This record gives sequence, structure tokens and C-alpha cells, in this order.
Amino acid sequence: MKIHFYKYQAAGNDFVLADNREGNLSFTDAQVAKICDRRFGIGADGLILLEKDPVHNFKMIYRNADGSESFCGNGCRAAVHFANKLGIIKDTASFSAYDGPHTAKILPKGFVRFSLKDVNAVESKGDDYYINTGTDHNIRFVTDIHNYPVAEEGRKIRYSNLYKPKGTNANFIEVSPDQSVTFRIYERGVEAETYSSGSGATACALAVAKVYGYSSPIKLNSKGGILTVEFETRQNGTFHNIFLTGPVELVFETESVI
Amino acid sequence: MKIHFYKYQAAGNDFVLADNREGNLSFTDAQVAKICDRRFGIGADGLILLEKDPVHNFKMIYRNADGSESFCGNGCRAAVHFANKLGIIKDTASFSAYDGPHTAKILPKGFVRFSLKDVNAVESKGDDYYINTGTDHNIRFVTDIHNYPVAEEGRKIRYSNLYKPKGTNANFIEVSPDQSVTFRIYERGVEAETYSSGSGATACALAVAKVYGYSSPIKLNSKGGILTVEFETRQNGTFHNIFLTGPVELVFETESVI
Repeated sequence: MKIHFYKYQAAGNDFVLADNREGNLSFTDAQVAKICDRRFGIGADGLILLEKDPVHNFKMIYRNADGSESFCGNGCRAAVHFANKLGIIKDTASFSAYDGPHTAKILPKGFVRFSLKDVNAVESKGDDYYINTGTDHNIRFVTDIHNYPVAEEGRKIRYSNLYKPKGTNANFIEVSPDQSVTFRIYERGVEAETYSSGSGATACALAVAKVYGYSSPIKLNSKGGILTVEFETRQNGTFHNIFLTGPVELVFETESVI
Repeated sequence: MKIHFYKYQAAGNDFVLADNREGNLSFTDAQVAKICDRRFGIGADGLILLEKDPVHNFKMIYRNADGSESFCGNGCRAAVHFANKLGIIKDTASFSAYDGPHTAKILPKGFVRFSLKDVNAVESKGDDYYINTGTDHNIRFVTDIHNYPVAEEGRKIRYSNLYKPKGTNANFIEVSPDQSVTFRIYERGVEAETYSSGSGATACALAVAKVYGYSSPIKLNSKGGILTVEFETRQNGTFHNIFLTGPVELVFETESVI
């Protein structure tokens, strides 16, 4: 079956997207893995299917490179851009994802800002933190982040007894004296360091707000670009009105036989 | 400028190819790096331009992911397949590459067999070997190859004083008791382990012939597929009539703006 695929990148996370409003696309885990393999397929951190939704403008299905389904923040931003390209939305959208409904707005220069669900719990995990921003994130504050062994330490956290059986994404973050914030992430499902993560950036920003008292908005540097997190803090320390903003780019389109 | 690109894989080495017979394509090192970047470009081990040649069917220009020019065995095989797709050749070809002229034949099921230049020197380098099969290859015999730290040890060899200033590709090979041969390679220019290498496979096969006395043809397992090397041995221990055979596949096509 010949399928028209769209390759996007969003702050360095890259995705293969396809229009499944007709509902005729269905992929096994092995097919998703092949599509996401750079050598034998197209190559991406994950596959996104845009589908019809009974209430919202569209439904966004996200599959990690291993085929597993999850929430994906940068993937949501890419899906919004794609919905605009397909003519489903203009510059605002409501859509449903793995963790529930979201709203979004396309800003100038291809930037997309979208809402994340409230964060009611920032848990301490030893010296680290755990935050769910639609998916699981462990956050560890480190120094000399550019030389930090993210793959090795990330893998340890992802498979640690603390997070068994489903595991977690593992974020590493450094707050510099000039107040700049940099993070790197080991992603569950990709099972490697990726260039960025939208939900990870959001979790990192909230951890910075909690630990360093930084106020909204917080800009975070990742390997793939800058992400901005806005939020409001409740008196009990939980967060609401959370928004993530960052760049999205259509890299190429292709017709492929799967 | 919108360019029609073809993405091929050849035993797990992947390449972006373009038709430059008109001579209007020219890329800086930074542009090659971007084209070869999976997230922000198309993603490949290298870029291949197929150009006109005054004597042969075509000329094949190979650029590593960092923009540097070199010979590339699996790239040659992909270029032959591409020349057939463009209608330049039928099932046989003569072409020029970085190291000189070659001949090739397209076999059933997309396999391509092509000639490599004679190998007149197999040098000992401590416990390792050095062979030039169009480009530089250090070959080290190891055990438990699937767990061998190819990236770390490859980087050490590539940047070692022995090979300064231009460096080398670094191959690791295991000959099992069942006589199967497996190799892995750290590639200069990509600066990482790749799935396979045509010139590396050839160098490994000749090292196996020299050290273990194996005769032609020798099949080698790589992460990306099986490659077969044929050769004849002269009485002085050098090699001629060398041919490499392996699979080639067109993965997708795309129009991209560079």
C-alpha cells in the first residue's frame, strides 16, 4: 500500500505523519519500527496518525519508534502544524491525544503553542523528581550537562526498580548562574537520547519553578532548539494553565510503500 | 532550489542520491551535513551525486556525512542501481569513483556486484592490519563481537598517532568456529559505527584470507546485511580480481528544498 508520509521536526524531535481520517491506516509495532528506522524506512523518533475526533478538530495518535503508544508534547505541536497543512484548522485547534484534550494556536514563523494538562503532583524520588505531564518524567539536576552520560544514566533510571514495570523518561537539567536552563533527555520507547521532548521540557520547567522558584515563562535549551513553558502556580504548589511553545518545520514529503 | 532526492540503502549503509548530469548541483560541507542529518534533513551515511564521465557510463561523487569526499563501496553499489533507474545503464556498467574506474553488474533481486582495485599491500599494524581497498581500513580480530565497544575502540584507532593526520576507518571482525565471519565498523567521516561498509567488508575478507587462509568467495555478516567478497590471490600474497556483491534497495524518493 502506497502511503503519503510527511516528515516533520519540532525542536529536534522528528516525526513521520500520515493522514488517517479515512481510518484505513493500521500499522503493527514492527511496521512502526521500520518506518522510524532511518536506514530501512524513513527515520523518526515516532509515528503520528491524524484521525477524526467526534468532539475536537482532530485526534492525534502517537506511536514511539518501538510501536508503543504514548503522549508526546513535541508530537502534538507537529500534529497541529500538519492539521493546518491539511486544511482541517486555521490558526487555532482543539484536539485529543493519549492523555486527553488539548487546545493549540499556530504562531508566526511556524511556532506552535499548546496546552498541557494540570500537574497536581511533583514527587521527590530520592535526589530526583517525578512529574507526569501527560507521560512519565524523572528529572535530575546535574552539572556540566553537555558532558553528562545521558544514555547510560538515563537507561539506569528508565529500568530502575523505582519505575518498574512501565519505566519512565529520564531528564537531566542544568540551571546555569546566568539563569539559562538546559536539558537533555533519554526517551523510553526510543530507548536512546533524543534531541528534545515537549512533555520533558514542561516537566523540567516545573521542577525549576519548584526548586529554584523561577517564574513563568521559562525558556529551556535542548539539543534541537529552544522551548518555552508558561504556567500558573497554585498556593498548594501545583500547576495549571500550562502551555508549551516551540518551532515546527515540515522537512519533506514522500510516497512510500509499507 | 527544489531537488529530487532518492534515498537508498545498501546492506544497511544508507545514502541520499541525486542526478547531477546537468552539473547544476553543488553543496557545501554544511549542506551535505544537513542533508545527511535525520532530524533536520533526509538522513544518511553519505550523499552521492551521479555525474557525466567522459569515458565511463557515469561518475560517482561520494561525500561523507561531514562533507568530506572519499571512496565508498556500498555507495558504488547504490549508484549502479540508481544509474539503472535513471536509464543510463541496463545491467552492466563502467563508472569512475574517488579511487578510479570500476565495472559493475546488476544481479537478480536488486543485488549489485562490482570490481574493486587490486590490493598490493596488507600491512601489519601491531596486532592489527591495514588494507587500502579504495580507502583506509584498520582491521582488528576480536572475540564476542556483538558486545565489542566498537564506537569507543573505533574512535581510538581512527584518531591514533599511527594514522595521523587523515585517520582511518576501523573494522572489527570475528571468525567463528562454524567459519562464519562477522564484522562491525567505525566510519571516519560519519564518526560513528555504521551498519556496514563495502570497502570495509572487502578489507576484512582479505584479512581473513591472509590470517585464516580462507578462499574466495567469503561471506561477511554485518549489522545491515550479508556481503560477499570474491578475489584471486597472487603468489606474493597480494590480491586482484576483487568483487563485492550485496543487496541494494530504493527506500523512498522526495523533493526537498536545499
